Amino acid sequence: MADLTIRFYSNVLKRDVSFLMVIPNDIRMDYPREDLKRKDRPMKTLFLLHGFTGAASNWVAGHLAEQYNFAIVIPNGENSFWLDGLPTGRQFATFVGVELVEYVRKTFHLAMNADDTYLLGFSMGGFGALHTAFAFPETFGKTAALSSALIHNEVANMKEGQGNDVANYDYYKMCFGEPSKLPESDNNPEYLVKKLKAAGKKIPEIYMACGTEDFLLEPNRAFHKFLEEQGVKHTYEEGPGIHDMRFWQEWAAKFIPLMF
Amino acid sequence: MADLTIRFYSNVLKRDVSFLMVIPNDIRMDYPREDLKRKDRPMKTLFLLHGFTGAASNWVAGHLAEQYNFAIVIPNGENSFWLDGLPTGRQFATFVGVELVEYVRKTFHLAMNADDTYLLGFSMGGFGALHTAFAFPETFGKTAALSSALIHNEVANMKEGQGNDVANYDYYKMCFGEPSKLPESDNNPEYLVKKLKAAGKKIPEIYMACGTEDFLLEPNRAFHKFLEEQGVKHTYEEGPGIHDMRFWQEWAAKFIPLMF
Amino acid sequence: MADLTIRFYSNVLKRDVSFLMVIPNDIRMDYPREDLKRKDRPMKTLFLLHGFTGAASNWVAGHLAEQYNFAIVIPNGENSFWLDGLPTGRQFATFVGVELVEYVRKTFHLAMNADDTYLLGFSMGGFGALHTAFAFPETFGKTAALSSALIHNEVANMKEGQGNDVANYDYYKMCFGEPSKLPESDNNPEYLVKKLKAAGKKIPEIYMACGTEDFLLEPNRAFHKFLEEQGVKHTYEEGPGIHDMRFWQEWAAKFIPLMF
Amino acid sequence: MADLTIRFYSNVLKRDVSFLMVIPNDIRMDYPREDLKRKDRPMKTLFLLHGFTGAASNWVAGHLAEQYNFAIVIPNGENSFWLDGLPTGRQFATFVGVELVEYVRKTFHLAMNADDTYLLGFSMGGFGALHTAFAFPETFGKTAALSSALIHNEVANMKEGQGNDVANYDYYKMCFGEPSKLPESDNNPEYLVKKLKAAGKKIPEIYMACGTEDFLLEPNRAFHKFLEEQGVKHTYEEGPGIHDMRFWQEWAAKFIPLMF
Repeated sequence: MADLTIRFYSNVLKRDVSFLMVIPNDIRMDYPREDLKRKDRPMKTLFLLHGFTGAASNWVAGHLAEQYNFAIVIPNGENSFWLDGLPTGRQFATFVGVELVEYVRKTFHLAMNADDTYLLGFSMGGFGALHTAFAFPETFGKTAALSSALIHNEVANMKEGQGNDVANYDYYKMCFGEPSKLPESDNNPEYLVKKLKAAGKKIPEIYMACGTEDFLLEPNRAFHKFLEEQGVKHTYEEGPGIHDMRFWQEWAAKFIPLMF
Repeated sequence: MADLTIRFYSNVLKRDVSFLMVIPNDIRMDYPREDLKRKDRPMKTLFLLHGFTGAASNWVAGHLAEQYNFAIVIPNGENSFWLDGLPTGRQFATFVGVELVEYVRKTFHLAMNADDTYLLGFSMGGFGALHTAFAFPETFGKTAALSSALIHNEVANMKEGQGNDVANYDYYKMCFGEPSKLPESDNNPEYLVKKLKAAGKKIPEIYMACGTEDFLLEPNRAFHKFLEEQGVKHTYEEGPGIHDMRFWQEWAAKFIPLMF
Repeated sequence: MADLTIRFYSNVLKRDVSFLMVIPNDIRMDYPREDLKRKDRPMKTLFLLHGFTGAASNWVAGHLAEQYNFAIVIPNGENSFWLDGLPTGRQFATFVGVELVEYVRKTFHLAMNADDTYLLGFSMGGFGALHTAFAFPETFGKTAALSSALIHNEVANMKEGQGNDVANYDYYKMCFGEPSKLPESDNNPEYLVKKLKAAGKKIPEIYMACGTEDFLLEPNRAFHKFLEEQGVKHTYEEGPGIHDMRFWQEWAAKFIPLMF
Repeated sequence: MADLTIRFYSNVLKRDVSFLMVIPNDIRMDYPREDLKRKDRPMKTLFLLHGFTGAASNWVAGHLAEQYNFAIVIPNGENSFWLDGLPTGRQFATFVGVELVEYVRKTFHLAMNADDTYLLGFSMGGFGALHTAFAFPETFGKTAALSSALIHNEVANMKEGQGNDVANYDYYKMCFGEPSKLPESDNNPEYLVKKLKAAGKKIPEIYMACGTEDFLLEPNRAFHKFLEEQGVKHTYEEGPGIHDMRFWQEWAAKFIPLMF
């Protein structure tokens, strides 16, 4: 299983940035023959979005990528909620959904269309996996969101000088834009879903899971309910667990076979 | 010459971040004996601040670190102007001047006091090298600023909706704080110099250089004049050159022997 | 948990080489207070030796290093069996047991004496963990060897032109030296144990484990029997499992709390 | 200019190995328009072979890759002289000339045929650049060899127990095979040239340079004379300089425009 660290100049973020990749294309010749055959199939690609305080690192056990024959692309989201913020160089949604996808396609000839380009994220990255899929539905065919930080409604109600345990008002404004404008902003995944429906556009396949002891359970249930009300087909699962790596590993291992 | 890539959790930036180091402590035994003796001397440390659009990378030729026997620490400034911005997790001055210095001291037993802890930067990093030294004068003994992006007075005059070729108003506000408050802000190096003088505190040794064809020549001359007016001792040099790596390499090679 | 990639010039191997480190010294301030106190204790260091076909990579879950407060050093053994081979630049035992230990001590002030310097390896690295501990008993206080490739007696019987599924005769000669001389060679862990006993020297604490389905079970039992016959105190465990990462993860998690 | 660190499993070397790449395909949108056009041309690829004691690192100034629009692949040769040695897992010529070329072609769609696949090396890597080109003339169209360590005739005369300042007999035997058999061995670049001529095969374009103060000047002149005697067209240059990076940078900058 080959792994890559890649640094390139991002025109969107306006600086050199790094991302990681995993490509299971280095075949051990002493592998069983049927395995070799499997490797000849074209490879799909999973964009993996990390959580708040995290950075790019390969947390999905490589054996899933090997077993289901897909490449992984792991950008650094830098606590951005994977959104297009207001300041120059904070357009993380465009970075992932446009620039990085194009760069990977041109450099590696992977992930050539929505049918073979998926998203998966947890916590802040779960929010990003949903938002990015809705923002670029012609680019991503499927998305899996674990223990997602669906805090857009909380942020929408913040006033200057407020904040929460995680960050202050200026921080949320930098990521989400003006909070008061969030209800009708492209940084709001609910608003995007409504726009897609109104335009009759295809919505990517959605997989969601949240732990029953997760402090983010309520906003996940609320988003599940929102999707039901909108008549958007999706998979929503709950299971024992808190907001931790154990839960994400378990559900990544459950969703990836369904996706690939 | 050993080089290191280090990832650690920054409490200031609130996420995993990476930085580079160069430590010329791996002695080739086939080196001349006098060289070996030189290596036994305790090692000073240079914090190297990159420019706008850049990222941590070892641009000072390793031979300078080898020849003058100092370690290099190269953080990622992410287009922050190395300042404490308003949003949570954008406190890059505190990150470099407090957290990173402490982390390097505790992990490597290098750079133990101001006498052996210096700064050097170019462009945005030249601005940072001056600002960080003035913000933490008990931590950094010397600072070298090349082709510095001393744009604080330009930013102070920006209004909402404005901006320049590099970035928009929201961007500068994220880095510098409210522009209108910049004249009396700790993000303003001139304000810091006045505060240090008023408090009778020691100001670090200052080395400045700018190319005569550099588009930032005027603000560099202005800052030189400001220091003269304030009676702050410093070295200021101009020489042929534009805003490029060639000028920085040339002047790093001139200033480092004077500093170390 | 900080992780480091370090490249330095090895005088023993005669070229630039890289190794990895894990140092759990980057304390999240939102951790519980008692955890912070624990972090103030001086840190022991574990040298981790990978297996044949492997390379340095952090396979011990970081949580063990965090929980038991030790640093990890992970060199690249390059299929060397961690031995001093015949050709110039193939002295991997001296590289790990002398040069790397000294380099880590001088650079990080970790692993300052045998009481806080341990070894752990699996497969080829299990062989190395035993051999290196016996070769440098004043440097390493404890050693843990999982599913160890204790093939020294097999190699001792090889003739020119022979070999096995893994490698040819020239390969084993490059690593172990002249096979016929192996019975009384410092590359033979049994020979080293006898020499230590004869000299009345202290033998490091030994932890061994092997899976009951491992193809290396017999040589592990034979070495266990050898240690018993020599009256060398050691821990030897067998458990269900084959020669794979699952067994190593399980037994690293069992032995590390006993060691640290 | 993107740079990549790639780790993959080598079946030839029988372990995980790393190599570096430089791909100038990340276009800054604020570049002049004619530059953007140039970037659309398909990209040739240069395999860069480092010297003894070295490791993969990007010593050719990136500006050459940017200016002449080629990718760079930089493997680790681990003091192997880039040859197929006797022991298992020491087949570095096959690693570079077959496995790595195929891996890069399949992963990146670069270097698809000999017309766009070149070699460049210095010192031990200069020897490798010549040897690899002659060993795989249908893979590499051009090769540049700087200050080459053409020591095959010296090695051919070594006897057991002998050696030189650099390494012992066992070392040279590990790399070159049985010294006494070297005159008619595929590890001998002169033997390969004669074989190619006898078979009427095309010989890659050859660029050689050596410094007039280089301690390897004589064997370079001897090889130049050998090529003349064989009627093999090639470029051979001498210039002021010793066996150092300055000479290599100078001549890489001279040869690359001729090659690309």
